[in-house]
Amino acid sequence: MTRLIVGGAQMGPAQKADSRETVVARMMDLMREASAKGVGMLVYPELALTTFFPRWYMEDRAEADFWFEREMPNGATRPLFDLAAELGIAMTFGYAELTPDGHHFNTSILTNRKGEIVGKYRKIHLPGHVEYDPERTHQHLEKRYFEPGDLGFNVWRNEGVLMGMAICNDRRWPETFRCMGLQGVQLVTIGYNTPSVNSQNGGEGLKERLFHSELSLQVGAYQNATFVAGIAKAGVEDGNPLMGGSVIVDPNGFIIAKAETEGDELITADCDFDLCAFGKSTIFDFARHRRIEHYGRITAQTGVIEPR
Amino acid sequence: MTRLIVGGAQMGPAQKADSRETVVARMMDLMREASAKGVGMLVYPELALTTFFPRWYMEDRAEADFWFEREMPNGATRPLFDLAAELGIAMTFGYAELTPDGHHFNTSILTNRKGEIVGKYRKIHLPGHVEYDPERTHQHLEKRYFEPGDLGFNVWRNEGVLMGMAICNDRRWPETFRCMGLQGVQLVTIGYNTPSVNSQNGGEGLKERLFHSELSLQVGAYQNATFVAGIAKAGVEDGNPLMGGSVIVDPNGFIIAKAETEGDELITADCDFDLCAFGKSTIFDFARHRRIEHYGRITAQTGVIEPR
Repeated sequence: MTRLIVGGAQMGPAQKADSRETVVARMMDLMREASAKGVGMLVYPELALTTFFPRWYMEDRAEADFWFEREMPNGATRPLFDLAAELGIAMTFGYAELTPDGHHFNTSILTNRKGEIVGKYRKIHLPGHVEYDPERTHQHLEKRYFEPGDLGFNVWRNEGVLMGMAICNDRRWPETFRCMGLQGVQLVTIGYNTPSVNSQNGGEGLKERLFHSELSLQVGAYQNATFVAGIAKAGVEDGNPLMGGSVIVDPNGFIIAKAETEGDELITADCDFDLCAFGKSTIFDFARHRRIEHYGRITAQTGVIEPR
Repeated sequence: MTRLIVGGAQMGPAQKADSRETVVARMMDLMREASAKGVGMLVYPELALTTFFPRWYMEDRAEADFWFEREMPNGATRPLFDLAAELGIAMTFGYAELTPDGHHFNTSILTNRKGEIVGKYRKIHLPGHVEYDPERTHQHLEKRYFEPGDLGFNVWRNEGVLMGMAICNDRRWPETFRCMGLQGVQLVTIGYNTPSVNSQNGGEGLKERLFHSELSLQVGAYQNATFVAGIAKAGVEDGNPLMGGSVIVDPNGFIIAKAETEGDELITADCDFDLCAFGKSTIFDFARHRRIEHYGRITAQTGVIEPR
């Protein structure tokens, strides 16, 4: 039996003025709380170390480099890695990555219980836009500051569990989950920063946004018979509300842990990964039931082609 | 503006002893009721004309041919087509199809408001098994009596709306919806016959089964910005309970009509198909956001390949 207590470290807002050190100290507090609860794998949000800077338009993109990390771990995050190793907690968190050769990605890393990085993911489904958009109530410039991830959707055997990562908007795309499901994934971790209101439709507020997030996470779990942890950075960052609603979902698609606040909050679930086997061997036994000869459009065309 | 009142004609049980004529008479009653409510497009269940015969094991497969239709329309269904033309109602329903050259499919057809067949779909994701399985509480022999569909997932422009069909278990596979989403679909119709209890896990009962069905239908609608009508054959057929829960879902994934019984019951929703445009042009603008270079596994491999 492979069993781990999975923790979701939802984080409250990080203001523009907050230093990495301040934020990492909060992450370490959550990790100590997780350790007290026996957590073996701890999931932090997307862009955990800073405010959600893609809401700010910077004409000169290089100005945004302030928000990027040039190495990981680095001076600010080293104490978190050390604590993880000391407490024996595997973890994943997101950050903005600037590579030595000048590429920008929205990235997350996965560590084992020794604090060693065993996997890296770079966000593939970047939402939003490239240029300032005066028609939106707030900007969402991920397509300006990041390049689409170049590493694909991978799965790693970590601490006895097949784990995969995705980030925020990736959760709305069934391709994300399926690519990992086809590698037998048992735990998908997804950090997010999701504005509480749709910038292009003010009528789509918190209730609808939470529904869409849960729907996407639950069905990803169910249809691939995997645990899913969707963990938010939440609360009001310099006047801009982000939704909470962090959840851990079981392989039947049921929510087994859920955050109640929009602040720093730990949720936990005792996950028996053997529970993935039933779905994977019956209704979602891909080898028996998938019919790839009819799925050609999914990889052959990017956009819509209507029939005549 | 393209607007149609969509009707879901949930049907109660068809017993083994019921003739096609008896069932078609009930379908016609539902159609008259739909006409009185202004329905322009009426959706009937999977295998609407007969009992869900794949629950019965027949050693000689040819014995099952009794449950198949050799042409459509035929003597038993002609009155339904005539009434549809008279009332000006487009429709879709499912039936077991035996082709002139001896192939067996779980099929549905789509008609226009003149009662003319404009589209045909053959179920691709056949659940269940081929041989008698003594470990199950009830048999589900779709893989014995049907071949996997050979027509793909198509979309037709019918009465001003881009319509596509799928059948029952297809709804649990995101590939189903995505293949139609990539053709701009605005209404996906899905008939089903779903046992109220999992034959391999008695602990998965009606509540869980309804949840999984709704989850799959809602997310298919949301992630492809399309209306979805999921319509049941429900109730107890010769001692075997089928779940109801027929729904019509809007392009945001919200349920806008839902059946309350397990019998013959009409649900309706006034659908403004222009509502599909917002999702298709923003968060699910496939051309801008999909990254097919990372989806290769979806069409390159059928089953799971775990990492080393």
